[in-house]
Amino acid sequence: MCRLMAYLGSPIIIDKLLYQPKNSLVNQSINAKELEEPLNGDGFGLGWYAREVNFEPVTFVSVHPAWSNRNLRNLAPKIRTDCLIAHVRAASVGEVSESNCHPFQYKNMLMMHNGGVENFSNIKRKIREPLTDELYNWIKGQTDSEHIFAYLLNDLFRNHKTLSPEAVVDAFENTFKALKKMMAENNIHEAAYLNMVVTNGLFIVGTRYVTDPKEEPLTLYHSEGSRYVVEDGVTQMMAPEDDDQAVLVVSEKLSDDKDWTLIPPNHFVIVDNTLNVRIRAIKA
Amino acid sequence: MCRLMAYLGSPIIIDKLLYQPKNSLVNQSINAKELEEPLNGDGFGLGWYAREVNFEPVTFVSVHPAWSNRNLRNLAPKIRTDCLIAHVRAASVGEVSESNCHPFQYKNMLMMHNGGVENFSNIKRKIREPLTDELYNWIKGQTDSEHIFAYLLNDLFRNHKTLSPEAVVDAFENTFKALKKMMAENNIHEAAYLNMVVTNGLFIVGTRYVTDPKEEPLTLYHSEGSRYVVEDGVTQMMAPEDDDQAVLVVSEKLSDDKDWTLIPPNHFVIVDNTLNVRIRAIKA
Amino acid sequence: MCRLMAYLGSPIIIDKLLYQPKNSLVNQSINAKELEEPLNGDGFGLGWYAREVNFEPVTFVSVHPAWSNRNLRNLAPKIRTDCLIAHVRAASVGEVSESNCHPFQYKNMLMMHNGGVENFSNIKRKIREPLTDELYNWIKGQTDSEHIFAYLLNDLFRNHKTLSPEAVVDAFENTFKALKKMMAENNIHEAAYLNMVVTNGLFIVGTRYVTDPKEEPLTLYHSEGSRYVVEDGVTQMMAPEDDDQAVLVVSEKLSDDKDWTLIPPNHFVIVDNTLNVRIRAIKA
Amino acid sequence: MCRLMAYLGSPIIIDKLLYQPKNSLVNQSINAKELEEPLNGDGFGLGWYAREVNFEPVTFVSVHPAWSNRNLRNLAPKIRTDCLIAHVRAASVGEVSESNCHPFQYKNMLMMHNGGVENFSNIKRKIREPLTDELYNWIKGQTDSEHIFAYLLNDLFRNHKTLSPEAVVDAFENTFKALKKMMAENNIHEAAYLNMVVTNGLFIVGTRYVTDPKEEPLTLYHSEGSRYVVEDGVTQMMAPEDDDQAVLVVSEKLSDDKDWTLIPPNHFVIVDNTLNVRIRAIKA
Repeated sequence: MCRLMAYLGSPIIIDKLLYQPKNSLVNQSINAKELEEPLNGDGFGLGWYAREVNFEPVTFVSVHPAWSNRNLRNLAPKIRTDCLIAHVRAASVGEVSESNCHPFQYKNMLMMHNGGVENFSNIKRKIREPLTDELYNWIKGQTDSEHIFAYLLNDLFRNHKTLSPEAVVDAFENTFKALKKMMAENNIHEAAYLNMVVTNGLFIVGTRYVTDPKEEPLTLYHSEGSRYVVEDGVTQMMAPEDDDQAVLVVSEKLSDDKDWTLIPPNHFVIVDNTLNVRIRAIKA
Repeated sequence: MCRLMAYLGSPIIIDKLLYQPKNSLVNQSINAKELEEPLNGDGFGLGWYAREVNFEPVTFVSVHPAWSNRNLRNLAPKIRTDCLIAHVRAASVGEVSESNCHPFQYKNMLMMHNGGVENFSNIKRKIREPLTDELYNWIKGQTDSEHIFAYLLNDLFRNHKTLSPEAVVDAFENTFKALKKMMAENNIHEAAYLNMVVTNGLFIVGTRYVTDPKEEPLTLYHSEGSRYVVEDGVTQMMAPEDDDQAVLVVSEKLSDDKDWTLIPPNHFVIVDNTLNVRIRAIKA
Repeated sequence: MCRLMAYLGSPIIIDKLLYQPKNSLVNQSINAKELEEPLNGDGFGLGWYAREVNFEPVTFVSVHPAWSNRNLRNLAPKIRTDCLIAHVRAASVGEVSESNCHPFQYKNMLMMHNGGVENFSNIKRKIREPLTDELYNWIKGQTDSEHIFAYLLNDLFRNHKTLSPEAVVDAFENTFKALKKMMAENNIHEAAYLNMVVTNGLFIVGTRYVTDPKEEPLTLYHSEGSRYVVEDGVTQMMAPEDDDQAVLVVSEKLSDDKDWTLIPPNHFVIVDNTLNVRIRAIKA
Repeated sequence: MCRLMAYLGSPIIIDKLLYQPKNSLVNQSINAKELEEPLNGDGFGLGWYAREVNFEPVTFVSVHPAWSNRNLRNLAPKIRTDCLIAHVRAASVGEVSESNCHPFQYKNMLMMHNGGVENFSNIKRKIREPLTDELYNWIKGQTDSEHIFAYLLNDLFRNHKTLSPEAVVDAFENTFKALKKMMAENNIHEAAYLNMVVTNGLFIVGTRYVTDPKEEPLTLYHSEGSRYVVEDGVTQMMAPEDDDQAVLVVSEKLSDDKDWTLIPPNHFVIVDNTLNVRIRAIKA
């Protein structure tokens, strides 16, 4: 079912996010705590921004499990960024291939998904139909995730001239509504789980969503504070006392402490470019 | 631009086809002789039939270059088959991924392609439109090749109830005609190179084709005889003298001898299940 | 800690061993039942004999997890053999690389190991010292396993002119004695777990061994009967009633039935070329 | 035979070194200009220093060819460093595995090699004998290169308390002398080609060396100037006019211009931490 994390805040060495916490994302690749099937060994990916160079993010993906990846292990202590997106995959729709690894990149945006749409092939061609040629051809892999993001981008660019958290929120609501309609029309009765994160390096919009309101969506937490600290595997968000600021959005808590807030079911978590966090219901 | 080979005949250890000839397919992965760009290092694939088990073929593909693949090296001297298809890739359209490796399999059929369609993305969605849902979802990768085969299969099953060399020939002609039309309507003026091979383990249909008759298609040879022999790197087709029989269809000669016949431009090579070989013009 | 299996008997399609049982080796790669750490996702390997071709085995290994390996999935239903060795790895000593994948091959012999020697680097150079140049250079990887097998082969060829189960048993005893001595002299106080399997395609010798008699060795079972059958995931050894015969040696039971016998601690399981099974104490 | 490059100077985006020059190292992976066998497709590796974090370098290696590596392509435009080491491999001794990829790292040092020792297995155990246990166990792969570097490090730390270009020069001369002796005593009569580069991120020592003075060593060039510029594939070393400084040491010229100086046969190129370059005969 995958696990994901997103960080926005003061520049940080990514080792502190990916390896050092007791329940770090790399540990979740072996043994996630809040999943029935604890294994997320079907590849991984990260994306980050090197703003001192330009606004386009870097992605680094692999079909190998995160836990044994030598390059990830070596890069993590040397990369410093103010915005990191990371994902470990448990393949449902789509083979284990680089094209199916999250995050997906479109220009300066990064996207990732935790969840899935059962019998996705029932609606695959429907979801592609309205896409512009450019977005149609942007799709490289087989995942439900990438197709849904293409739909989201298509809606976003049709309805909005500038990229903002509000525009992304709007596009998510349109996408989820459309998806529910397509599912109903194409014989998909199982709930679709749609915890999704979009960032441009300046803001983050995340969803904790399930199409069937009787079901519980997958877990999604956030944490905010003046500064993110990890010591002996225990993470801590320091209370605001200076200019440092940091927000984390994660599938599961990185350590057993009380700094984590569960996003309510079918709500957005919106982190703007001043690091203010808003929680808002998803109207879809 | 890729290189390919197909064998149909008396059971043979595949090492004799893949490694032993001087200009074997594995050697062509490093240094093809009849290509401007001699390198075919973007993965490889083979498919063969184990008729003692059942009629579905086995495929074995890798994103690693053929020349250094330990598993290929180890399997080759131990696999015996009467029908082998093999391909080394030089990526044009589509990333280096297992999904983009040839041969492509549909049930008991195997398909592979040497060539390409420039600006393929111009017609990608057109080519998918007429596909049945099943064939639409059968496509796993990004290549022009796989999309063209989906179109071919779609035409084949719509117009024919049983699989035969004639049915495949017919479907190829329809596909090439349709492709030329789509290209013309979507602003693709470059010639498309379409050396393609389809087999079901019992017969082979190959094409040596280019959409623009003023251009020379890529090379495609065949060789036939009573038995295929390779000694010190030199291949030989023994003259018919007993019941053994063998036919090879290859992108380039496996050794410098006179057993190879160049297929004429825009012609089919058709090997039926009695190993008779016919050469026929492609009407498209 | 790895999981392994070995089959000797009537020719069998290897899918029945690797995939079909409820607790098949491929399932053990995700979730082994009799290990504290259930994951064996650091590559896999198999070796089998194609006696219709020659006496040298084929090995097929990968650094990818077994559960998602497309080539393994495709090959398994088409390979038929009377002797299969297979291993899924949880890396302890040595990186995830093809050179560290079991089984190891020396001429017509295959070897694999489940267990480990703590602080192996303390004795690595000691264990290499007595080796002939040929065996010294035969070692390709970093594992304790491969080094111990090199020592075993060295002892075997020094003391025996022909290969037989008795010769292998003798070499194992010498090797385990020597290893205990080296460990004692080089400050290794932890018990070493040494469940090891050697075959030449005609006989199998397996050990269930731990250097410290106060410790329990890792599990190792065997099963024997007239024929191995798997239906709906449940394996069964048919009672001897005809000429068919089959023996399995496995780290853990392939399904919950009573056909499995736990080898006693520090005992050999010896399957000879008539498929007779003997259990004998290891004198070391 | 491999190709290599080393850069020391003003911080630079590594894309300018790896991709932009006409004859960039990535292009050399497909088609090196100054090698009989132009292909270097058996993996690649780079190492660089992120001094703003600490003194240990990062290494990034892959068994895939450099030309199609998505992660390398993505990382290159975002990594800025003042010391980069990079290598594309054509495997001679040792399989295609991450352990055999250059550069090799020991603490804050990086090492790489272009060349080879024929029949290296003749002297493999000799070269390991004098090593400290730590360096004995530091060796992870099978290459002649890594073994020679272990010998070099062993000599270096035995005879020198601090790391300096002079110390490395001294250790190289001892290593080459010892190697020639071992070769002579163990029946290796072919010339060994030893273009080797060692750096600690502050200085570089490179060798252009062949053990047989009658042979021509492999090419090795250097280039120095105030600033390294690449425009439309053409590299240029600007004449010293300001504080910017840069030195390149490369197997072959990155573009056809006159900024490149061939190191004389059997000479060192020594770049110290003020970017002064000295060329000095190798006494061995």
